[in-house]
Amino acid sequence: MKRNILSVDVRKMGGSETGPAQDLVAVEEPLEIRIGGKAVSITMRTPGNDTELAAGFLFGEGILRSRADIERIDADGPNAVNVAVNVDVDTEHLERNFYTTSSCGVCGKASIEAVYSTGCRMLPRNGFAVDARIIHGLPRSLRESQAVFDRTGGLHAAALFNREGKLISVREDVGRHNAVDKVIGTEFLAGRTPLLDRMLLVSGRVSFELVQKAVMAGIPLLAAVGAPSSLAVELARRFEMTLLGFVRDDRFNMYSADWRVL
Amino acid sequence: MKRNILSVDVRKMGGSETGPAQDLVAVEEPLEIRIGGKAVSITMRTPGNDTELAAGFLFGEGILRSRADIERIDADGPNAVNVAVNVDVDTEHLERNFYTTSSCGVCGKASIEAVYSTGCRMLPRNGFAVDARIIHGLPRSLRESQAVFDRTGGLHAAALFNREGKLISVREDVGRHNAVDKVIGTEFLAGRTPLLDRMLLVSGRVSFELVQKAVMAGIPLLAAVGAPSSLAVELARRFEMTLLGFVRDDRFNMYSADWRVL
Repeated sequence: MKRNILSVDVRKMGGSETGPAQDLVAVEEPLEIRIGGKAVSITMRTPGNDTELAAGFLFGEGILRSRADIERIDADGPNAVNVAVNVDVDTEHLERNFYTTSSCGVCGKASIEAVYSTGCRMLPRNGFAVDARIIHGLPRSLRESQAVFDRTGGLHAAALFNREGKLISVREDVGRHNAVDKVIGTEFLAGRTPLLDRMLLVSGRVSFELVQKAVMAGIPLLAAVGAPSSLAVELARRFEMTLLGFVRDDRFNMYSADWRVL
Repeated sequence: MKRNILSVDVRKMGGSETGPAQDLVAVEEPLEIRIGGKAVSITMRTPGNDTELAAGFLFGEGILRSRADIERIDADGPNAVNVAVNVDVDTEHLERNFYTTSSCGVCGKASIEAVYSTGCRMLPRNGFAVDARIIHGLPRSLRESQAVFDRTGGLHAAALFNREGKLISVREDVGRHNAVDKVIGTEFLAGRTPLLDRMLLVSGRVSFELVQKAVMAGIPLLAAVGAPSSLAVELARRFEMTLLGFVRDDRFNMYSADWRVL
């Protein structure tokens, strides 16, 4: 049984708990789903019940119709499931029709090392630092500027700030990855990337792909109102990006590169 | 400017607000991202800032490096953006390497009608009904059975119940779509689909793809602790699946097929 939670070192800020601590994060790892040995999908998932995940996915897509369509279904290493089928499945057709979404990001490349190949660089050690009190104020600035969230409860937000905590832009979307793409895309189209002097705040949780997008844009600090995944923490550490989680109620946890917070 | 929120008819249950009402939902629609007229990605997004979304996505994936790589970027109809580029982009390579994730689901087919083609059927009008008091009790059952959520704050949960509100199974994952695939896949592998006598509860929001997975599995009632998107509501209505949102604190909203709740 693979672990689905992991303990990581953090530095807590705010309140009486300020100081080094341990935090539990949900494990996030890629799973490759194969039919007859051929990869048809990759998803970032929490390990456990992988064969059920693969079967449920293929059933939900109409590829498998009944249990009897499956000859065998087995784990193939820690992060792959192979399905031997009794029925004809046009995997070429599958590949043609199953485009990625941006919620996939680099997960298809299945490893942190692969992020290097997309052009990500280490974030500079000097040049950006921010006072903890400014971090505490970010969620309120976001709430005050959110156009839709409070009315539907259905939108994620991403907001870009300068180091003084001044809001630069905010975007909302049903997909958190889209909100981040919109914020970064605005700056990219204006010719302002890399964003070496900016902070990004997201309204929810932080997955691998959000960290990847921020690193790619050269953003030195990513703050989230919610929890990070294990792979988000790992990727942030690798590129020395400052990752903050649970940024709310005048507290937050620092998961990486905490020397950027004063 | 396309609308990013939509008002829908609901029936509120619980408290003094019981009765017909209007609810605002976040709009969810597919966006196709094209390079030189060729589709390279489709994402379910909230309309607005579509060119920025496309640019941000392509930049984040390392496909565009600078603003100067873009010759033109324009909306191409309401749900597509085309990017004319100055640089070589191997779109064949893109297609080979960008697999879907299950968070894509049928969005690549880009319409509710396409869900029919995957084999979805209308849910039977008779045969499943549940008392509202049982619905009120579902979130507590879920919380009590969740293994990891309360410890990391980073996992979504999906739980299957029978019509008496007895918990059948619960799964957790960093991806809400994975949690649902795991729950449904378990039943599929046991030969118990379609799940015509079951209810599904999810811990967060409900997008198009979650409704699609539930309809595909024949589940007549999908309840969510969070908000539904516009397309989730539309799809549930089309297949006459009962969709409930904001199921918490002894209240909920009914968005479709409310005659299954007594």
